Amino acid sequence: MSQPIPRDEPPPAGRAADLAHMRRAVELAARGHGTTSPNPVVGCVVLDASGRVAGEGFHAYAGGPHAEVVALRAAGERARGGTAYVTLEPCDHTGRTGPCSAALLEAGVARVVVAVGDPNPVAAGGAGRLRAHGVVVESGVLAEEAERGNAEWLTSVRLGRPHLTWKYAATLDGRSAAADGTSQWITSPESRADVHRLRAGADAIIAGVGTVLADDPRLTARPSGDAPDPGAGRRLLRVIVDSDGRTPVSARVLDGGAPTLVAVAHDARATELEARAKELGRLGADGAAEVVRLPRREPYGIDLHALLAELHRRQVVSALLEGGPTLAGSFVREGLLDRVVGYLAPALLGEGAAALGPAGVTTIAGIHRLELEDVTPIGPDLRLTARPAPLKEK
Amino acid sequence: MSQPIPRDEPPPAGRAADLAHMRRAVELAARGHGTTSPNPVVGCVVLDASGRVAGEGFHAYAGGPHAEVVALRAAGERARGGTAYVTLEPCDHTGRTGPCSAALLEAGVARVVVAVGDPNPVAAGGAGRLRAHGVVVESGVLAEEAERGNAEWLTSVRLGRPHLTWKYAATLDGRSAAADGTSQWITSPESRADVHRLRAGADAIIAGVGTVLADDPRLTARPSGDAPDPGAGRRLLRVIVDSDGRTPVSARVLDGGAPTLVAVAHDARATELEARAKELGRLGADGAAEVVRLPRREPYGIDLHALLAELHRRQVVSALLEGGPTLAGSFVREGLLDRVVGYLAPALLGEGAAALGPAGVTTIAGIHRLELEDVTPIGPDLRLTARPAPLKEK
Ligand SMILES: NC(=O)c1ccc[n+]([C@@H]2O[C@H](COP(=O)([O-])OP(=O)(O)OC[C@H]3O[C@@H](n4cnc5c(N)ncnc54)[C@H](OP(=O)(O)O)[C@@H]3O)[C@@H](O)[C@H]2O)c1
Ligand SMILES: NC(=O)c1ccc[n+]([C@@H]2O[C@H](COP(=O)([O-])OP(=O)(O)OC[C@H]3O[C@@H](n4cnc5c(N)ncnc54)[C@H](OP(=O)(O)O)[C@@H]3O)[C@@H](O)[C@H]2O)c1
Repeated sequence: MSQPIPRDEPPPAGRAADLAHMRRAVELAARGHGTTSPNPVVGCVVLDASGRVAGEGFHAYAGGPHAEVVALRAAGERARGGTAYVTLEPCDHTGRTGPCSAALLEAGVARVVVAVGDPNPVAAGGAGRLRAHGVVVESGVLAEEAERGNAEWLTSVRLGRPHLTWKYAATLDGRSAAADGTSQWITSPESRADVHRLRAGADAIIAGVGTVLADDPRLTARPSGDAPDPGAGRRLLRVIVDSDGRTPVSARVLDGGAPTLVAVAHDARATELEARAKELGRLGADGAAEVVRLPRREPYGIDLHALLAELHRRQVVSALLEGGPTLAGSFVREGLLDRVVGYLAPALLGEGAAALGPAGVTTIAGIHRLELEDVTPIGPDLRLTARPAPLKEK
Repeated sequence: MSQPIPRDEPPPAGRAADLAHMRRAVELAARGHGTTSPNPVVGCVVLDASGRVAGEGFHAYAGGPHAEVVALRAAGERARGGTAYVTLEPCDHTGRTGPCSAALLEAGVARVVVAVGDPNPVAAGGAGRLRAHGVVVESGVLAEEAERGNAEWLTSVRLGRPHLTWKYAATLDGRSAAADGTSQWITSPESRADVHRLRAGADAIIAGVGTVLADDPRLTARPSGDAPDPGAGRRLLRVIVDSDGRTPVSARVLDGGAPTLVAVAHDARATELEARAKELGRLGADGAAEVVRLPRREPYGIDLHALLAELHRRQVVSALLEGGPTLAGSFVREGLLDRVVGYLAPALLGEGAAALGPAGVTTIAGIHRLELEDVTPIGPDLRLTARPAPLKEK
């Protein structure tokens, strides 16, 4: 495979080579997953004029160099007359780094192959500028894979709200607790460790006040006692949905160990909560708390669209909904789930709380259809990943 | 692989060869699955004295020749001084065919390798007779695989009751119907076709009167309208569990198209049902109906141990429990399930009937643990197969 290509023979080119290089760029992009928020993940492969790989790069963290810049730097002079494969249309605006379109022009790249066009109105236009300067730009190569890798960020930009993953743990008969409310532990230690990986990839964890009152969870990315990940500069925002401000001031989510947002209704009496938030601020705790007031959506509680808009304003690109069934049911009813991750324990209960509460479905025609995307054994359990099914003509 | 072995060189022998030949015998045995009931599935490989395969066989249908006889017939004189691999200890009694132990002795086999000892008190003893005549007998080779292949029959012989598989179809949140009771169709046509394959491998289908009253199912092995399988001589017994004889005489399970057993309580008033059964008998219908009276187990209904003993008496080796949640819960409570096959549709309902009803679990410590045995995508759905977990010391 890596034999030098004889001088007079052209290296592999055409559609197959384009796909192979873009696949590599998508792979590179994935390395930034979980650390680039609020930026997208991006990967880039640069070929020299003869079609040999001259440089590779990916966007590793927000504020760090863009994938194109990393790859061009590696390629140096060899980029001149070459091709760049980029998983996302090169940006055209000067943010923390200069526009990538300019960098590509400066490096003398002759052709740019793009997987997904940039939907971001601020950054878009890179392809246009490149074309205006005589660069050949092709778009849509391996778009589906690249879209999937950027699902969180694309949802955030396209819909103006965070990408939402609902995570649940249940038995084969769909129960998350026994009849008396006990639920520790339905799933295995392996599954619980996997949940912490899920959390680590999110910007925020959302829970309902019912879960806070029942379990008093910590909602941090790591099981308490674990050493902090030295690379993790980002703080996971804990979000409690609590119309009437019933979260106790002694709750673990208000321990100051990580930032917390308590969303209450515009007319809630939340004096103690607001006082506790002030106190945490005064203490200079690691994690501040904030109470935000949002519209009600009767009879359910907080307007979840308003909640997600609020999180979007706070640059939350991906959020993990962890509980409980009542709040999850509301998100399903509102059509706000982008992904479902279920940890199924091979076990039966027959009674006890269901994993999902009322979601606005009264008859079978209203069922919320999903598509299975992945099924992976995790210890003795099974992890299912599904996405809402695209609407189909009947 | 199939190169002739030079005359003076011994063919592969020892442990690895034993495992390979037994694996082949287990494969052969599986071909009889679904058609040998009430007999076990059995496979046999016979080697000649030099270790070359001389004959193969399996038990294909009840009343047909045993696996050993088929394989010995194929081997002929070459069996003399050779080895026979049998997945189940050769029988020693004269049933519809003569004892296999005698056939092996007559053929002059020098060594017999057995996977699973025969637990059947009537048939057992084959190994003893062989040893008494100087044949070397080894047992326990590949026992686990062979046991799995014969799970139904072994359960029947060891426990004196049918092997019971509970089949259910549900959403990811464990619901089998929407809030208004509608449930057609949660799972896909592919899953429903797969259920018919499951049925075809069973001797009986069991349903509760609740399911009969709600859905009036036909409970036959084939979707109505399909051409009958020409090879299928066996009739699937439909079993309705109905303490008070509430099954309507007009129910499809009493259509005379297949035999039906209605299990009512000893003190039930079931005059119409008994009259309908007599009528079907008089009509000489394809499928007779019978009403059987069994003890009550308050407050649940029929004593399910008595029901299974009754089915055992009727040579039902494997039964498929198809519904509904109430009856399934009772079987789980009584510890009578041997296998669970769940068809999970990637969909959410949030409300509606749960797949499993109360199963005697009040707190998490009482959870019924299973072990996943197989996970297979069936169309858009997922089929999970699990078995009760072996009891573990905590
Ligand atoms: N197995 C799992 O994966 C898992 C995960 C988490 C929790 N759980 C279990 O779930 C149980 C708690 O669940 P839960 O259903 O009672 O509580 P929940 O879903 O955590 O919280 C529900 C509460 O959120 C508030 N809320 C505010 N806006 C809402 C809206 N638009 N829609 C719905 N709710 C809204 C409501 O209270 P207000 O009206 O007061 O605002 C509502 O009662 C606990 O037993 C916990 O152990 C299980
Ligand atoms: N999705 C699926 O896989 C699936 C499969 C089948 C059915 N279903 C649905 O399930 C629903 C019917 O379920 P169901 O739970 O009402 O009825 P069911 O489980 O079919 O039948 C329950 C009835 O069986 C009788 N019974 C007798 N002995 C019993 C015992 N020891 N334990 C428990 N029950 C005993 C009881 O009535 P008596 O006291 O009168 O004897 C009891 O009410 C229907 O809506 C159907 O569509 C779904």
